[in-house]
Amino acid sequence: MARAFIISVGDELLSGRTTDTNATWLSNELRVVGFPVVGRETVGDDREAVAQALRRGAEAADVVIVSGGLGPTADDLTRHGLAEALGVRCERHEGAVAQIRAMFERAGRELTPANLEQANLPAGSTPLHNEWGSAPGIRAELAGALLLALPGVPRELKKMTAARVLPLLAEHPARGESPARRSVTVVGMPESEAGSLLEDLMERGRDPSVGSYPGVAQLVLVIEGSDAAAVSRDLEAIKARLGDAVVGEGDCSLQAVVTELLIATGTTIAVAESLTGGRIADLLVSVPGASSVFKAGFVAYANEMKADVLGVRSETLDAHGAVSEPCAREMAEGARRVAGADVALATTGIAGPTGAVSGKLVGTVFIALASADGTDVRRFRLVGDRMQIRERAAAAALDLLRKRLSRTGSEAG
Amino acid sequence: MARAFIISVGDELLSGRTTDTNATWLSNELRVVGFPVVGRETVGDDREAVAQALRRGAEAADVVIVSGGLGPTADDLTRHGLAEALGVRCERHEGAVAQIRAMFERAGRELTPANLEQANLPAGSTPLHNEWGSAPGIRAELAGALLLALPGVPRELKKMTAARVLPLLAEHPARGESPARRSVTVVGMPESEAGSLLEDLMERGRDPSVGSYPGVAQLVLVIEGSDAAAVSRDLEAIKARLGDAVVGEGDCSLQAVVTELLIATGTTIAVAESLTGGRIADLLVSVPGASSVFKAGFVAYANEMKADVLGVRSETLDAHGAVSEPCAREMAEGARRVAGADVALATTGIAGPTGAVSGKLVGTVFIALASADGTDVRRFRLVGDRMQIRERAAAAALDLLRKRLSRTGSEAG
Repeated sequence: MARAFIISVGDELLSGRTTDTNATWLSNELRVVGFPVVGRETVGDDREAVAQALRRGAEAADVVIVSGGLGPTADDLTRHGLAEALGVRCERHEGAVAQIRAMFERAGRELTPANLEQANLPAGSTPLHNEWGSAPGIRAELAGALLLALPGVPRELKKMTAARVLPLLAEHPARGESPARRSVTVVGMPESEAGSLLEDLMERGRDPSVGSYPGVAQLVLVIEGSDAAAVSRDLEAIKARLGDAVVGEGDCSLQAVVTELLIATGTTIAVAESLTGGRIADLLVSVPGASSVFKAGFVAYANEMKADVLGVRSETLDAHGAVSEPCAREMAEGARRVAGADVALATTGIAGPTGAVSGKLVGTVFIALASADGTDVRRFRLVGDRMQIRERAAAAALDLLRKRLSRTGSEAG
Repeated sequence: MARAFIISVGDELLSGRTTDTNATWLSNELRVVGFPVVGRETVGDDREAVAQALRRGAEAADVVIVSGGLGPTADDLTRHGLAEALGVRCERHEGAVAQIRAMFERAGRELTPANLEQANLPAGSTPLHNEWGSAPGIRAELAGALLLALPGVPRELKKMTAARVLPLLAEHPARGESPARRSVTVVGMPESEAGSLLEDLMERGRDPSVGSYPGVAQLVLVIEGSDAAAVSRDLEAIKARLGDAVVGEGDCSLQAVVTELLIATGTTIAVAESLTGGRIADLLVSVPGASSVFKAGFVAYANEMKADVLGVRSETLDAHGAVSEPCAREMAEGARRVAGADVALATTGIAGPTGAVSGKLVGTVFIALASADGTDVRRFRLVGDRMQIRERAAAAALDLLRKRLSRTGSEAG
């Protein structure tokens, strides 16, 4: 089995300003391609510390991934640490200069001398082209180990790993067997409930293993094992036990699933948001291709907007208040009518920290779904802080629509 | 200055199942009591790996904190790693047995032989009483360094740090001064430009140090040093050099600053969003107290909504297209009028990955700010992927408003 080693570089990691989520992400990526991580070191922006960690990493593993410290400023010292470990000097690499120049030209930005410092690479090393930022990665060898230095900006690290690192590992002679791996995304079910339903499958030491990774509004279940058929059997068992709480296979986004369903069923949508304040629209519009189904969004945070733009009746607001079943209903119906959309979602509720009223605690949320068949309104009691309640309300609304559209789709089919 | 070293133990950290938030939390706790972390190693549940990391930690620092691997199961090997590093055996510690017994009696739980395994400590070491779980911590000395092993469960780690570790560090002879620390948040200026303007202050090895921490749409600059007056001088110098790109002191959010300014100046706002699709509304509504100034948001992604709800003229759309200066202007003016707000922001642009047209590349964004004084429209060329362009457009819009409101505020005052 091949072994990987991770070196995370940055004073901000040691000072506690930043949590090393890069290392978590990288560890998963490396493991699934057959390079389990056998050790990790976190060092500051310090040439000698980087060099020492590189020597230890090269001794312990077949591949050493370094993240961070490739930026243009004086405290970015990874290239110098690499040079020291390799026993060479840094020198201007003309290929890297050309890459950096081209990148700045594309972006229409002025090149500074600091940016060219990023083209000073350890003699004999190779730049790894970075299309997503100004710092090239670096490839070198030390004591038989492959050294790969990547930028620490999470987005660049991820793009570079996919485009530059994984292809190199795919042809690495030490490469081990990838474990079989499947996953599903679950929405609208707490982790503890999923855990109870899957207790036997999640037992420690079992092969396949089933792990759960909770986010704010969703849960990803990962099944991993040495036997692909057993992994598939577990996947099917999980789908059967969790029913329509399973949004789809893989780590999929609820908004992408909903947008796909809208497109597949030829359904246009409008949203009227009070407590979610634009979050549902933002999620839908973040999906490329949403423009063909997303008609309009209304952030009706103030009561007068609920009345003036969406046509919520003043008697409704007076008798029931804005956080009520009738108000959610009229918001959804108003948005659908004004936008001329096939369906409309509306949210109203109390995100907190203040705003609780008699009978309506923080976390009380009404969600309405209006369509040609009428309007369905649900009451939720969500937990968490303001951000979590808003995020969970947005997910609950999209999930209500997902379930409706899947039903329509399967009835039609 | 005293130095601390962290060793995080656990296969789940190396496999990527768990992110090491304990290390982040500990690093902050240690730094503010004068024990900055100089290095960190993450090792698996492996006796020899724990022992080697301990030897390196004891050489590098005055205090070594180990977290994890103290549980009752066979793969909890931290105590055996400690014993190996110390060159001793593990033996039953009667004080630890008594603590564990008492803990189980209080909880009304049955004591298992596995739990008593947790009372096997390296000979000569001292248990650290754990009132919050079943595993005692361990205190020992190696090569002049203080070794402290804590449970990996985050809640227990935090309680044990406060109750057992910090008092020991308070009387540690190597204890250093807590550094003075200030920070500012910067918007609308690339990291490289801020770096050029502050090159002398950011020079490596300088005291105070100035570090920069970039996000998608903002930059935090942290000044830290041994002398509080020097740190304050640097802070003032940074504010003077970066001018109104400085949003505020500390790690502050642009949306909170804008909302504060809106409240302070008694200004109500509406937003009309095309490419940002609800993101600006979402950011503003995420701030508690936003309801007093946020009148309404319109997500006018489709042209018909721009025309029907906001009153953008069809001649404007025909002659200039939706991504144009006149369309942004009419969107902002329409939103302001419909919502009856004092000011309105509007965004229209091309977030990509597709949608570029002749003369308007992906990343082209028009942002309009309408007020009683007229309408100001700016053209931007933003870089990044769809998510980044949308996020940067939202920040650029809020920043335009921030600068306008700060000017108004200072003119009035």
